[in-house]
Amino acid sequence: MTSARLTPSSSPDEVRQAIRRGDWSHHTSGLAAGFAQANLVILPAQYADDFMRFCLMNPKPCPLLDVTRPGDPVPHALGEDIDLRHDLPRYRLYRDGALAGECTDIAEYWQEDFVSFSIGCSFSFEEALISDGLDVRHLSHGRNVPMYRTHRSLTPSGVFRGELVVSMRPFQAEHAIRAIQITTDMPRVHGAPIHIGHPELLGIKDLATPDFGEPPVLHDDDLPVFWACGVTPQLAIEQARLPFVITHSPGHMLITDLPNQRLKFG
Amino acid sequence: MTSARLTPSSSPDEVRQAIRRGDWSHHTSGLAAGFAQANLVILPAQYADDFMRFCLMNPKPCPLLDVTRPGDPVPHALGEDIDLRHDLPRYRLYRDGALAGECTDIAEYWQEDFVSFSIGCSFSFEEALISDGLDVRHLSHGRNVPMYRTHRSLTPSGVFRGELVVSMRPFQAEHAIRAIQITTDMPRVHGAPIHIGHPELLGIKDLATPDFGEPPVLHDDDLPVFWACGVTPQLAIEQARLPFVITHSPGHMLITDLPNQRLKFG
Repeated sequence: MTSARLTPSSSPDEVRQAIRRGDWSHHTSGLAAGFAQANLVILPAQYADDFMRFCLMNPKPCPLLDVTRPGDPVPHALGEDIDLRHDLPRYRLYRDGALAGECTDIAEYWQEDFVSFSIGCSFSFEEALISDGLDVRHLSHGRNVPMYRTHRSLTPSGVFRGELVVSMRPFQAEHAIRAIQITTDMPRVHGAPIHIGHPELLGIKDLATPDFGEPPVLHDDDLPVFWACGVTPQLAIEQARLPFVITHSPGHMLITDLPNQRLKFG
Repeated sequence: MTSARLTPSSSPDEVRQAIRRGDWSHHTSGLAAGFAQANLVILPAQYADDFMRFCLMNPKPCPLLDVTRPGDPVPHALGEDIDLRHDLPRYRLYRDGALAGECTDIAEYWQEDFVSFSIGCSFSFEEALISDGLDVRHLSHGRNVPMYRTHRSLTPSGVFRGELVVSMRPFQAEHAIRAIQITTDMPRVHGAPIHIGHPELLGIKDLATPDFGEPPVLHDDDLPVFWACGVTPQLAIEQARLPFVITHSPGHMLITDLPNQRLKFG
């Protein structure tokens, strides 16, 4: 059900309350403008240390905004009135590495040993790019960002391993330089690009056919600019084939009380 | 004459004293490592306001480190024990826009209405790039940096006008991103690149044949990265055909007491 009237000017608390009441199960793109949204990964405690180390060793695809204590549903660094059992509009359940279902509330699945990881998301830096006057092409064309598997191995930790996934945003050269400058200051939401210009050096054969998201809109004289992507930890988790994991559903994020501006300078 | 023994570990004062005594007339590259070197332009006061405005309106090619009061040979922002009449190893004299001679001391030409402009130089950011572990290709190959005229017009001021000149340093993509990050923090020595990737968009037809300096050493997968260059104001001054102007001779710079580290963050 999506009966609430939520807009870019709705506050993070208004949005979360509507979601918590069951009045919003749509994606969160554009809601509570100016506040950080986060990817969510919930794991049993026995895997949490390895996953935390995995994130710390691969900070560009997995920038940690918060890690809870076992059983605590509140990500205290992101807001006190947040309950991760109810406050995302849609969750995904994975059993033994396979998608086992989606739901809009996870109270019935909650375990006292669950550790929740909130991971920074590119929405925050895209807002900063747009505020600076840059054209974020996929947004101005109403598309999803194109994402690609690369051949770059991640630093493994326990059962967590895999390859880096990147998102790509094309810019003319001057704007590519500006985008590097702006995102350099935002290390908690993927930070500076990891590559520019030569997709084949990342193992990407054809920019027109991304592995996730939608094909890019490319202009002559564009440079493709590649950022580490939050799909990276999702794939590492699937590949780890844990007995039970909960994540956000793509596009259905945690809305935090953290202003995007606070993500500057780490 | 070049009889002094000067090295990278000589202090700025040691170097300037040797030059002042007439014991060093060679170039200054590599001397007094860690301290900023500057381009010098000396003009009669009647042109100084227009030239200062020209620099301020075109800050990337003409970043001002110091402007003296008329007749004062000391650039106070760069060190108190500096005398611009003696302390550069080689000067160029221009009359009516044409090179009229070189000399190692300009005391005999000094005018009470001379205003001296010290302009930041890429040596400072190259040192920062090398300290970061980047390969500055022309330096590692013992060449001069390649420089190119572009078709980008400068903002004119009085008799000063012209087109932007750029220097080019090739890097692999990850290092290009890093070079953008490092030079972004150094706006007083040309700052971030003005272009990356597509020389033809600047009006450069062939990277292999620079207008100044020496041809680049290019590797596969390099991206050409372009910075605004201190040759820009030199050409603008020649084109202005002023009755009398003094500049440093290429590579024979003013060595200042300003640590390169102090150039960070403007």
